[in-house]
Amino acid sequence: MSRSLALSGFPEWLPAQRLVESAVIDSLRHTFAVHGFSEIETRAVEPLERLLSKGETSKEVYLLHRLQEEAGTASAEKSSPDAARQLGLHFDLTVPFARYVLENAGKLVFPFRRFQIQKVWRGERPQDGRFREFTQADIDIVAPEELAAHFEVEIPLVMAAAFEALQRLGVPEVRILVNNRRLSEGFYRGLGLTDIDGILRSIDKLDKIGGPKVIELLIGESGATAEQAQACLDLAAITATTAAELEQAVHQVGGKYGVDQGDYGIGLTELTNLLQSACAQAPGSIIADLKIARGLDYYTGSVYEAVLVGHEDLGSVCSGGRYDNLASDGSKTYPGVGMSIGVSRLLSRLFAKEVFDVSRPVPTAVLVAVNDEETRAESDAVAYELRKRGIPTEVAPSAAKFGKQIKYADRRGIPYVWFLPSPAFTRADGSEVPATDHQIKDIRSGEQATANPQTWEPSAADWWPQVTPAAH
Amino acid sequence: MSRSLALSGFPEWLPAQRLVESAVIDSLRHTFAVHGFSEIETRAVEPLERLLSKGETSKEVYLLHRLQEEAGTASAEKSSPDAARQLGLHFDLTVPFARYVLENAGKLVFPFRRFQIQKVWRGERPQDGRFREFTQADIDIVAPEELAAHFEVEIPLVMAAAFEALQRLGVPEVRILVNNRRLSEGFYRGLGLTDIDGILRSIDKLDKIGGPKVIELLIGESGATAEQAQACLDLAAITATTAAELEQAVHQVGGKYGVDQGDYGIGLTELTNLLQSACAQAPGSIIADLKIARGLDYYTGSVYEAVLVGHEDLGSVCSGGRYDNLASDGSKTYPGVGMSIGVSRLLSRLFAKEVFDVSRPVPTAVLVAVNDEETRAESDAVAYELRKRGIPTEVAPSAAKFGKQIKYADRRGIPYVWFLPSPAFTRADGSEVPATDHQIKDIRSGEQATANPQTWEPSAADWWPQVTPAAH
Repeated sequence: MSRSLALSGFPEWLPAQRLVESAVIDSLRHTFAVHGFSEIETRAVEPLERLLSKGETSKEVYLLHRLQEEAGTASAEKSSPDAARQLGLHFDLTVPFARYVLENAGKLVFPFRRFQIQKVWRGERPQDGRFREFTQADIDIVAPEELAAHFEVEIPLVMAAAFEALQRLGVPEVRILVNNRRLSEGFYRGLGLTDIDGILRSIDKLDKIGGPKVIELLIGESGATAEQAQACLDLAAITATTAAELEQAVHQVGGKYGVDQGDYGIGLTELTNLLQSACAQAPGSIIADLKIARGLDYYTGSVYEAVLVGHEDLGSVCSGGRYDNLASDGSKTYPGVGMSIGVSRLLSRLFAKEVFDVSRPVPTAVLVAVNDEETRAESDAVAYELRKRGIPTEVAPSAAKFGKQIKYADRRGIPYVWFLPSPAFTRADGSEVPATDHQIKDIRSGEQATANPQTWEPSAADWWPQVTPAAH
Repeated sequence: MSRSLALSGFPEWLPAQRLVESAVIDSLRHTFAVHGFSEIETRAVEPLERLLSKGETSKEVYLLHRLQEEAGTASAEKSSPDAARQLGLHFDLTVPFARYVLENAGKLVFPFRRFQIQKVWRGERPQDGRFREFTQADIDIVAPEELAAHFEVEIPLVMAAAFEALQRLGVPEVRILVNNRRLSEGFYRGLGLTDIDGILRSIDKLDKIGGPKVIELLIGESGATAEQAQACLDLAAITATTAAELEQAVHQVGGKYGVDQGDYGIGLTELTNLLQSACAQAPGSIIADLKIARGLDYYTGSVYEAVLVGHEDLGSVCSGGRYDNLASDGSKTYPGVGMSIGVSRLLSRLFAKEVFDVSRPVPTAVLVAVNDEETRAESDAVAYELRKRGIPTEVAPSAAKFGKQIKYADRRGIPYVWFLPSPAFTRADGSEVPATDHQIKDIRSGEQATANPQTWEPSAADWWPQVTPAAH
């Protein structure tokens, strides 16, 4: 096969990188579970009709066909009712989660708190250089009919805790930016504007295209006057770390443009409550930033975006919000709130910035040397004893000279080599070599000592590969 | 949306079942890592040409199309060289692993020991009731040009250790059945037969269709005489737990039909060596069973199949073998040996047999009660303290009456409810209720005690949900 083996948009990691990814995912799972979230996984596919019900994303879906069906008559299959449903790969974890909740509503206890860490796929053009397959880590809380506002406070705090735990591995500090749709929308309506979705989409582009261009859009596409457009920008310029700061700033802009508190009051209260709780529980990690709009039109309350401090150029690494109408079976609606981390995107960029240090690329702590192939069973027996006590161990692949076996360990990054007992013998020159017991050699320091297969342990730092912040 | 939400062939688990799956996967990851296997993941898709290069499986592949491409002109896209490659979802983890090894050969250290736990997809007809998406857990060892025979001994022993560890969760004991292609093939050739692949495929059907039908096939399709066909069946009937037993049985059948040891000797030696090592390291878990043929034609040495003791009706739960020619870039070949567990299939059947007991369906150990919404922050603060020490904690969703909050915990299976201090007060009838400190209530026993948020801990068994063998 002569053609290139790599496929653009489908990232794959080397073993050492996978160790980092694994450590990141294990840490996230731990944080989410400690906060009482249950894990679920959903199937990779959904009927196309469901994937498209969210709108806007139709271009990004991968459709599935069975090879057999392609070769033969595509239409024959479509006569059976189940087969007639065109399947596509999910492009996020929110749409499948909403479907899972509806499907299993009778078996779940609400409010249902779930986390989900899975691959998603987007049928991007290959030439765009975007990821077409990537891992997301989502948390959501849903409840039937009503969802208390305090869950909108809890979700970003769980993510703040999740990112705080990731700092031990080398992930930079996070800052979560929050806004509230009811605040922005109420303000726009108070100004007399009506194309709310259009305004939100334009505001969402602020960082990309800048203020003057956004004003043009607001005037040209959403029918705003120059003054109304400026008011939208003034509101979007507000950032605050405390509730008092936020209230003062919003009231000032509101007063300047004559927007009544009645229009945006509920949203402002929700956002100040969020800030207040955040300041108490995780000071500095959450700030109000009123330019956060989120492109998607299904958000109805709080909206979130997170950036890494000092790495703002990476863009948003985690985002989400409250949605009131996403999961509905027609008779019952399940409002929810959630956030999603783009794990693959985050890692690919942090790999490029070399923020991680991995102590070794293999799990193995000990290589048991082999004296000769006839006595390999004795080396296997030592490995068995070590593994029984949870020590990651390999047996040398061949009974090469010890120097070569040590080199093999070194090439793989294995810190220790174990030597089996050898009997006393007489060298060709007549000198005596005494019998030795089991020996363990730290090949980094060269230190060697007698060891017992039933009791020897590596240091805690050497037991498993360690992922830590790179020193630079 | 009125149509059914479930899709046949795409299993999904409820949270308690996912807890079991997670515990199984974590246990497998641990065992594999303790044996020095590095984890990798590969992309879900491969070019169709690569998926089909293994043969036989063409009917089971899911092809991908971008929705955009469907809608417009499908051919326009195909002019770009990368886009021209038809992509399909992988149907196993061996084909992608072979490609990964070729692609990254320069960055890997050989022998490369890897494990991989991922979903795979097969485009089965929906009406067949087979899984179309399922999780596999694979281990393989590959090396350039040569792979020592002792790795064929190691792989089934690692799987035996993996299944032994799973017994703690409730998975029944495993028995790994081994055979050697060189032994069977040498024997068939010694009989004067030439359609080796055909004979292997027929022998593979023994359990399904029985001896007489297999004899018919051997005679009708592979050109065997009645005596040759009977010889094949006599060989396939051999099972042995020790090397001596195996040698005696094979020599007896060989002698009876005049097949020379020179024809099957290498295969027999490899198989007796495997049995010998297995008896020393994991007595009873591995037995020789000469009817094991494996349908796939790329196996060249040892072949393995595993069944659960007492649950043989489930069929093979884990299988694999040695392959010499699967990974090749034209100039260099990477022989390998591996085994694969069908995790979803195994679990769906063990769920049906109710072999697992899950102590609770949610991670949460403690529900912190809320006195009233105004003081929710105080409950949040207690939860924060408990989580800081790794105790899975939720705060009550609403400040309902305590009875209702306890009922909520009970419905979710949360064992403990935490109550915050309350001041002394006087009841309407004049009686005094004294002030209380923080209280923890075990809602199973009703026991309640004073507790300190900074020091209280649940019992080890209550800390996380436990998966154990069901008592029956």
